[in-house]
Amino acid sequence: MKSFKFISVLLAATFSFFSLFSFNLLSASEIKEDALSGISISSQTQACLGCHNRYTPGIVKDWLTSRHSKTIPGEAMKKAVLEKRISAEGLPKELREFAVGCFECHSQHPESHKDNFDHMGFKINVIVTPDDCRSCHPAEAKQFSESKKAYAYKDLMENSVYRTMVNTITGLKKIQKGVLLTEKPSESTLHETCLGCHGTKVEAGGLKKISTKMGEIMIPVLSNWPNQGVGRINPDGSRGACSACHPRHSFSIEIARKPYTCSQCHLEPDVPAWNVYDESKHGDILFSKYSEWNFSSVPWVIGKDFKTPSCATCHNSLLVSPAGDVIAERSHDFGARLWVRLFGLIYAHPQPKSGDTTIIKNKDGLPLPVTFTGEPASEYLIDKSEQEKRLSVMSGICNVCHSTQWIQDHFAKLDKTITETNAMTLTSTGLLVDAWNAGLADRTNPFDESIEQMWVRQWLFYSNSIRFSSAMTGAPDYTSFKNGWWYLTENIQHMKEWIDLRKKPGRSKE
Amino acid sequence: MKSFKFISVLLAATFSFFSLFSFNLLSASEIKEDALSGISISSQTQACLGCHNRYTPGIVKDWLTSRHSKTIPGEAMKKAVLEKRISAEGLPKELREFAVGCFECHSQHPESHKDNFDHMGFKINVIVTPDDCRSCHPAEAKQFSESKKAYAYKDLMENSVYRTMVNTITGLKKIQKGVLLTEKPSESTLHETCLGCHGTKVEAGGLKKISTKMGEIMIPVLSNWPNQGVGRINPDGSRGACSACHPRHSFSIEIARKPYTCSQCHLEPDVPAWNVYDESKHGDILFSKYSEWNFSSVPWVIGKDFKTPSCATCHNSLLVSPAGDVIAERSHDFGARLWVRLFGLIYAHPQPKSGDTTIIKNKDGLPLPVTFTGEPASEYLIDKSEQEKRLSVMSGICNVCHSTQWIQDHFAKLDKTITETNAMTLTSTGLLVDAWNAGLADRTNPFDESIEQMWVRQWLFYSNSIRFSSAMTGAPDYTSFKNGWWYLTENIQHMKEWIDLRKKPGRSKE
Amino acid sequence: MKSFKFISVLLAATFSFFSLFSFNLLSASEIKEDALSGISISSQTQACLGCHNRYTPGIVKDWLTSRHSKTIPGEAMKKAVLEKRISAEGLPKELREFAVGCFECHSQHPESHKDNFDHMGFKINVIVTPDDCRSCHPAEAKQFSESKKAYAYKDLMENSVYRTMVNTITGLKKIQKGVLLTEKPSESTLHETCLGCHGTKVEAGGLKKISTKMGEIMIPVLSNWPNQGVGRINPDGSRGACSACHPRHSFSIEIARKPYTCSQCHLEPDVPAWNVYDESKHGDILFSKYSEWNFSSVPWVIGKDFKTPSCATCHNSLLVSPAGDVIAERSHDFGARLWVRLFGLIYAHPQPKSGDTTIIKNKDGLPLPVTFTGEPASEYLIDKSEQEKRLSVMSGICNVCHSTQWIQDHFAKLDKTITETNAMTLTSTGLLVDAWNAGLADRTNPFDESIEQMWVRQWLFYSNSIRFSSAMTGAPDYTSFKNGWWYLTENIQHMKEWIDLRKKPGRSKE
Repeated sequence: MKSFKFISVLLAATFSFFSLFSFNLLSASEIKEDALSGISISSQTQACLGCHNRYTPGIVKDWLTSRHSKTIPGEAMKKAVLEKRISAEGLPKELREFAVGCFECHSQHPESHKDNFDHMGFKINVIVTPDDCRSCHPAEAKQFSESKKAYAYKDLMENSVYRTMVNTITGLKKIQKGVLLTEKPSESTLHETCLGCHGTKVEAGGLKKISTKMGEIMIPVLSNWPNQGVGRINPDGSRGACSACHPRHSFSIEIARKPYTCSQCHLEPDVPAWNVYDESKHGDILFSKYSEWNFSSVPWVIGKDFKTPSCATCHNSLLVSPAGDVIAERSHDFGARLWVRLFGLIYAHPQPKSGDTTIIKNKDGLPLPVTFTGEPASEYLIDKSEQEKRLSVMSGICNVCHSTQWIQDHFAKLDKTITETNAMTLTSTGLLVDAWNAGLADRTNPFDESIEQMWVRQWLFYSNSIRFSSAMTGAPDYTSFKNGWWYLTENIQHMKEWIDLRKKPGRSKE
Repeated sequence: MKSFKFISVLLAATFSFFSLFSFNLLSASEIKEDALSGISISSQTQACLGCHNRYTPGIVKDWLTSRHSKTIPGEAMKKAVLEKRISAEGLPKELREFAVGCFECHSQHPESHKDNFDHMGFKINVIVTPDDCRSCHPAEAKQFSESKKAYAYKDLMENSVYRTMVNTITGLKKIQKGVLLTEKPSESTLHETCLGCHGTKVEAGGLKKISTKMGEIMIPVLSNWPNQGVGRINPDGSRGACSACHPRHSFSIEIARKPYTCSQCHLEPDVPAWNVYDESKHGDILFSKYSEWNFSSVPWVIGKDFKTPSCATCHNSLLVSPAGDVIAERSHDFGARLWVRLFGLIYAHPQPKSGDTTIIKNKDGLPLPVTFTGEPASEYLIDKSEQEKRLSVMSGICNVCHSTQWIQDHFAKLDKTITETNAMTLTSTGLLVDAWNAGLADRTNPFDESIEQMWVRQWLFYSNSIRFSSAMTGAPDYTSFKNGWWYLTENIQHMKEWIDLRKKPGRSKE
Repeated sequence: MKSFKFISVLLAATFSFFSLFSFNLLSASEIKEDALSGISISSQTQACLGCHNRYTPGIVKDWLTSRHSKTIPGEAMKKAVLEKRISAEGLPKELREFAVGCFECHSQHPESHKDNFDHMGFKINVIVTPDDCRSCHPAEAKQFSESKKAYAYKDLMENSVYRTMVNTITGLKKIQKGVLLTEKPSESTLHETCLGCHGTKVEAGGLKKISTKMGEIMIPVLSNWPNQGVGRINPDGSRGACSACHPRHSFSIEIARKPYTCSQCHLEPDVPAWNVYDESKHGDILFSKYSEWNFSSVPWVIGKDFKTPSCATCHNSLLVSPAGDVIAERSHDFGARLWVRLFGLIYAHPQPKSGDTTIIKNKDGLPLPVTFTGEPASEYLIDKSEQEKRLSVMSGICNVCHSTQWIQDHFAKLDKTITETNAMTLTSTGLLVDAWNAGLADRTNPFDESIEQMWVRQWLFYSNSIRFSSAMTGAPDYTSFKNGWWYLTENIQHMKEWIDLRKKPGRSKE
């Protein structure tokens, strides 16, 4: 039954495909010219293209500009090691011999995909996951799967402290009998706040009929979709979304390497990596000159393909010197070259060993890598020697354009800045504890009262802005007046005055 | 007398024009090469060019890059319907047969132009208005003239509630005998604050002599000039400024379609459309790739000319599919594809029927589309069926690159976000009313005390930021920490604590 | 002894250089192709290139893209006056006849360079200073050396009022026995906050051994390095860093002219020049079109090379009209075309006469160009006639594209805005004095209490944002809701309520 249906729909699709050639010459000839001549497209992908070129032509056009549409994996595997963009060492024939098209990606592992559905006779997954990309890119998929990015959903939503903060911020507020109540946040709001970047849990459950341009069709019901957060929980059980950085159907390495991609999530006030980069000298030179550079070549040659780093340069790309020496290996674990964690936690601290940070327990018994007073949970964090190894990799990248002294002085400054910003946070923590002890605020939820919100600002907005700016050698305004020391100082003063005002004789907790 | 003067000055101008050829070969030959050969320039425009190429050469150079300088309207009218950039169906001979030059635009309808003056023997309008552009572009002028943009001055300055807010914010503050007084704002400050975008009222009154590089000349006295706000009241009585988006003398469709144009006014914290777009996935792809795209072609082909939308794509351009099917008709009523209004008002609500929103009266008797407690003035707002029609047009644009399910899930999320952000505003309104009722603040002017300013922030800065971010599928930081839920929540807490602090026994209103 | 060592190392370096040709063909042939054929490179620079192409190839590649690597100064001096990029009228033979390479710049005036050290047999300065660039660019070095930029370190750190503000903001805060104490800021934090832009004091003291890719070498110990702040105090006693705007080894005029360069320091909230420009109509047109413009040509032709100004256009570049007439002379005193100072001080005021503003003494005896109540220290400030001269230069630039009336109306509006924002600051100063007089705050340090921080915000963040926006004809949101009048007004209200709350009967200073 099923295979009969498959064949007949395939025939219909193929017919519709060829009729495109007659009825819709423009788009058909464009497909031919761009991709269909000189490269083998699987029959299934041809069928996809036949309809989708009519109904969602933007997707087809996007794919036609991609390297995938022009690449036969079997050929790509023969390239020199440093030039390879594919890490698989063997591939089944159906993936090896055809361009990487719609069906090749949307049909992987149908058995584990709860979002798989019967679409025009094909078994199609709505969502392509890192486990699907793994077929051709196993090294990258493995690196990513062990990174904090892959655990971005879990690390936030299954950490009791962070979950309290999330719920406090995003829950609806109501006043009832003079009391301010916070409801549980809706899935929808979680989806477009925290989980917009961290990734949602996409679950498939049953089918529904929808009306489309091509008539009524049955599709899977998906929760918390669409989403491309880096730690998305997929209907096949995998974690992550490659499309977070290689968006849509061009799967572009160029886009991933340009800083705009990272700017979607790494933004002020909590993660001002983009903002600091944008205003740094590296950013100045890049934005002034990058139209003359090459963001697509593999390997990526410092000094030839580009003159100043974008985010990807320092954090994950395979870099070689103009002479062809490897400066840094490619990694899709974006923390692999980092020795300290600058943001998101109360105090900066050594990077955690595991991407899954929910396993951490500090001396206070909390799932945080440092205590409220700054003591690190060292057994869960990388040690000095691993820190030095990573610093050495990063310094090696700097060293292509900067002298050894320059680099050492730069990172010594960062160390000092980490110490001082942690100390400024500690002072504000002291004030918070003072307010708690005086009964001016309630420590049950450490995120909901003004004095607590000021404390969160101290480490989540201000200390981290200064550290980002220090790390990226530039953007002095992010250390000074723009979420920098001005705010650190003003905020401590506000906390102090908040307490003093309420401690006056005859006054009790508001 | 007058015509004699005209002719003699024309001769003088013409002479000066030809003497340019001898004395100023560079610019003369450039004009020749770029525009004067092969296209008919009216004798009047030739006279303008003769002097202005010497005295304001930047204007002439700008015009020489424009399509106007290379286009004979009579020829442009013969193009295929979808390729037409001119909507007039008939034109007087003097406009039909010459390139669109200085005189063609600056001489229209002199009788209604109070800024018309005698300039070197020609009757010149200082300001070219939408009613002048209407000669060749009647469809666009009509669409625009009915839009909220055209009423941007009136909708702000002739709405009593908004006028109170404007005056409160922009009036000079003085302390007299311990009381804080607000003066009436100056025209100058209104001009460069609100009316910088909304448009000023430019009135012409008499002539004045000024000294210029070409000697002393008489020019009209204009109030509140220069200004290119979208709702400018012009000296011919018309509303609007086409130069708001098609700036200066290149009248570029490319510039209007690039998002930088919209970024002049649609900015955080009150209208963060640009900021959200900038950080969205659409923005990421556009900024990474747009140097390879075509922003000038008419019609604009999705997937061929560009791969991701800019502002103009979704809001007003004529779009066709790669196969040539019309996806959306051009409109210069920039609200025409919108079903809800996300910003600027206390609560999000269905779009108003008329661009003139001063006609609205809600149940409280105020000229606002919703009451303070969120009830819409439905008779002035578009109904469900019109909303669905507009949603369907917008969805059709999305559908070129996104599946039907994706789009439906996306807009369902927006609906939920509107509901929740409206609820968060309502909670803050409740707190404000509580403060008023307790005598802690004075409701006479709802915009001048701290607790009122917090309330304004809730809907004007924070709720709307979240809604923009939700609508444009991206920029999760604008929903979270950057003017998003963090601020919505913190602000309600601040309002609560402000009230509690002042409600303590023995304390009265500050 | 010394010369023997020199020669032997030179030989070794030369050998290593030629061995590069055999062992490292790629980079050697690239150097040959790009720069070494057809142009004379000094033997010393050849030695530098030999090693550095292996050890810091990014620097060499960057230099190879520079005009310096392709220019023989003796030839450059022969160009027509307006086309010259070199202002020296005579040069010693060793600078005149070779391309401007590593050794030519890093070996100038070794006797005055305390950072000079013996590096592979050559006497090398680590830091190239304005006094070194002066050899070929004396006019530019002189202009710069007299500007406020050159005094940026001194004007901040040796002004007692500013030094108090700096120390208050950037010093570590500790609570001891309930009292908030501010420590003296660390050099490291000063370096990456204020002095990141203003420049550090770089002092050389002794040598240290470091381990590099080429083995252990001895290098000078430098304090507060790396840094490229505009007012850097250099180890040769000179002030400034040309690399602040002509970064790294491309020394690019293109980069310096693009606005990204200025954006490194001229940022919101205290100096929002970049932010305002970015959102102005000039910025809109530039970002939409600048890929078609020429940012490298000298002289820079308005209307031909570019259509709208970047920062450099109005502030310092040599500009000519399309006909070749000089519109504005080049100046590296970036204040030379400015008649008022809009930012950084309590009240806007006429530009100071000298770049060294520490010499100023106002009527209160403070080193500030205005008193706390707005009275200017006129003898230190340029007079009306100098102001008018500068306004006339600036207007001449505007006049290439804008009519005389437009320009006059524009600058009249700026005048009015200066008056009003100064008045808004005066009102907040009145509130501050009220708080001081009532004993609610302590005037000893005018920067450390909440009410004082609000007062600083009034002039340092808000009034100046409005003035920048007014000056640059655009960005109406920076006058309105984004650090504009909304904030000016809200902030005064906050100051008033802060005082009122604490003035209640029975309450004293917090």
